[in-house]
Amino acid sequence: MNGKPLHEAFNRTAYPITGHGKRNIGVLKDALNAYDGDLDSDIYGEGSIIEGFQGKMAGILGKDKAVFFPSGTMAQQIALRIWCDRKGVKRVAYHPLCHLEIHEQRGLHELHGIEPVLLGGKDRLISLGDVQELYGKVACLLLELPQREIGGQLPDFGELEAISACCRERGIALHLDGARLFEVLPYYQKSAAEVCALFDSVYISFYKGIGGIAGAILAGDAGLAEESKIWKRRHGGDLISLYPYILSADYYFEERLPNMGRYYEEAVELAGLFNKCQQISTLPAEPVSNMFHVHAALSKERLEPLLIELYEETGVGLTHYLRETGETSCYFEISVGDRYALIPKEELHRAFAILDEKLAAVL
Amino acid sequence: MNGKPLHEAFNRTAYPITGHGKRNIGVLKDALNAYDGDLDSDIYGEGSIIEGFQGKMAGILGKDKAVFFPSGTMAQQIALRIWCDRKGVKRVAYHPLCHLEIHEQRGLHELHGIEPVLLGGKDRLISLGDVQELYGKVACLLLELPQREIGGQLPDFGELEAISACCRERGIALHLDGARLFEVLPYYQKSAAEVCALFDSVYISFYKGIGGIAGAILAGDAGLAEESKIWKRRHGGDLISLYPYILSADYYFEERLPNMGRYYEEAVELAGLFNKCQQISTLPAEPVSNMFHVHAALSKERLEPLLIELYEETGVGLTHYLRETGETSCYFEISVGDRYALIPKEELHRAFAILDEKLAAVL
Repeated sequence: MNGKPLHEAFNRTAYPITGHGKRNIGVLKDALNAYDGDLDSDIYGEGSIIEGFQGKMAGILGKDKAVFFPSGTMAQQIALRIWCDRKGVKRVAYHPLCHLEIHEQRGLHELHGIEPVLLGGKDRLISLGDVQELYGKVACLLLELPQREIGGQLPDFGELEAISACCRERGIALHLDGARLFEVLPYYQKSAAEVCALFDSVYISFYKGIGGIAGAILAGDAGLAEESKIWKRRHGGDLISLYPYILSADYYFEERLPNMGRYYEEAVELAGLFNKCQQISTLPAEPVSNMFHVHAALSKERLEPLLIELYEETGVGLTHYLRETGETSCYFEISVGDRYALIPKEELHRAFAILDEKLAAVL
Repeated sequence: MNGKPLHEAFNRTAYPITGHGKRNIGVLKDALNAYDGDLDSDIYGEGSIIEGFQGKMAGILGKDKAVFFPSGTMAQQIALRIWCDRKGVKRVAYHPLCHLEIHEQRGLHELHGIEPVLLGGKDRLISLGDVQELYGKVACLLLELPQREIGGQLPDFGELEAISACCRERGIALHLDGARLFEVLPYYQKSAAEVCALFDSVYISFYKGIGGIAGAILAGDAGLAEESKIWKRRHGGDLISLYPYILSADYYFEERLPNMGRYYEEAVELAGLFNKCQQISTLPAEPVSNMFHVHAALSKERLEPLLIELYEETGVGLTHYLRETGETSCYFEISVGDRYALIPKEELHRAFAILDEKLAAVL
């Protein structure tokens, strides 16, 4: 993971602008300290820890039932499998940059024999028009809110409602990849249940904006929940004890849910700082959640030493990595969390002023 | 889980004879207290926590590489899938009471399209003769040591060697379900590596005799390990953080591995106490690990109130459940762990004397 100069320089900064904090085992220790040691483990999906949390999440998402999973990869494949079995069609639609397409080693195909129909594009969201052409082709449409790999973009809520209505009309199940659902609620000005009401099944994650250790919830009708438990067993995810993930999910959910509005506003502010710099632009130009991408019209090789200098001079760390997008362009992702508010504004503005100077100097 | 009189009576006893202790979150808190909070999380299978533990386990098992999995269900399906792909045969052989056949909702078939050939019987182990008839039929033979569902029986080490040689001759991969591998080493008087040398791939668990939270290791050649990581991702088991299971596995491995000989000897002693009681017999008659089954020639309905009385009179708890095997027979499983040694011998012998009297009275 390390041994990389930019990563090491970032790790030495006093003011990293992204995330909640280091992913060390103290994160779990802090959460467990809130619970008494006598509390009984969940046992293969039963017991108060898991049943209580599932009930709480079902309520928040406005669904009949919720089931805790060790990962979203598992939860989502299973949701799509259940929809395919119900509809008798082994195809689902999703975005070409969705998690199942690019991060899961084709598990949906290899384990479930399900093939995707790709909708939208590598530079745009799935639109109502895309969905209107789907008739009869797929069992399920998966929408990711926000669409992470294109900077965390969102459809207007009106378009989302139209997509949902269109799916219902055509008998297509609508599944929400809500890995960052809570992060988009301040922009939509909706409750989680109001957004989820447009979907037939919903997955949410606990280690993005919530900042837990790992784990996911799949919510939907009672039949889907029961069937998902059978598939959880088949996948090897029905662990004797999932409480390390459940307790930390619950702990950080309570701690950070109230902050989602602040993270969003801070992301808008921070994107503004980036966009004032030469050769830099953010995607989206104005964030609609706590996340956005920062694109530079500069090669990774040229930007990296400049960032390392910046970190050393200012103590402000912008990113620990750069990803190439072309010979003279690269980008990185920002997720605003607890750390942003800890940076003195003066230090932050000074860092962006220096960044702009450095970028001007290499023009 | 509770709300059952026998379970509740068992939970009130001062001297439960089975297991290490309660499965509460204190088990994890104790383990984490041994580590500094600054220790970095593993990240998607990388980092010192997971890589270090995998290297340690590969060494102990005498295999090239080891990979940590959240569950044995996942690890074993994946091992069998890899052997099937390598051999070009979608069939494996295992015992009719093996974990894959009775506890995994046919995951091996539903996710991997693999069919089993059942060897051995519901009352006996897989023999060399069974294996000799397998030629050309299967990619892999799975052996579980000890065979849990028939009381934890074991083949002689000589027969195990002959089965291994037979498999190699016939080009059949031999996979070890070693959920309780460390528990059988004192009987075999072999090291883990000596046993594993007979197998091409090995799974071990950390929440049986070791007493961790959950988690498993799959070990084998380097190619199998690498391929298993791809399947781990597909199954949804490549979590961003598996350290709650890894750190507790390592902690309790160090604590309990030295006790395996004692647990085994205590199981032999305890089985002797059961066998002196009327209408009771153990399977095996003399245990070969820390586990055995206790069979009663009495219906569950007649034995249960008698056990509840016994627990209340003596404070010694024998089991929290009974499983019917017929109209006038039932059984339960014993796994000797830390708790057995904590029972004053006088209390233990008194409890068995009273049990024998009670059983005589219902004849």
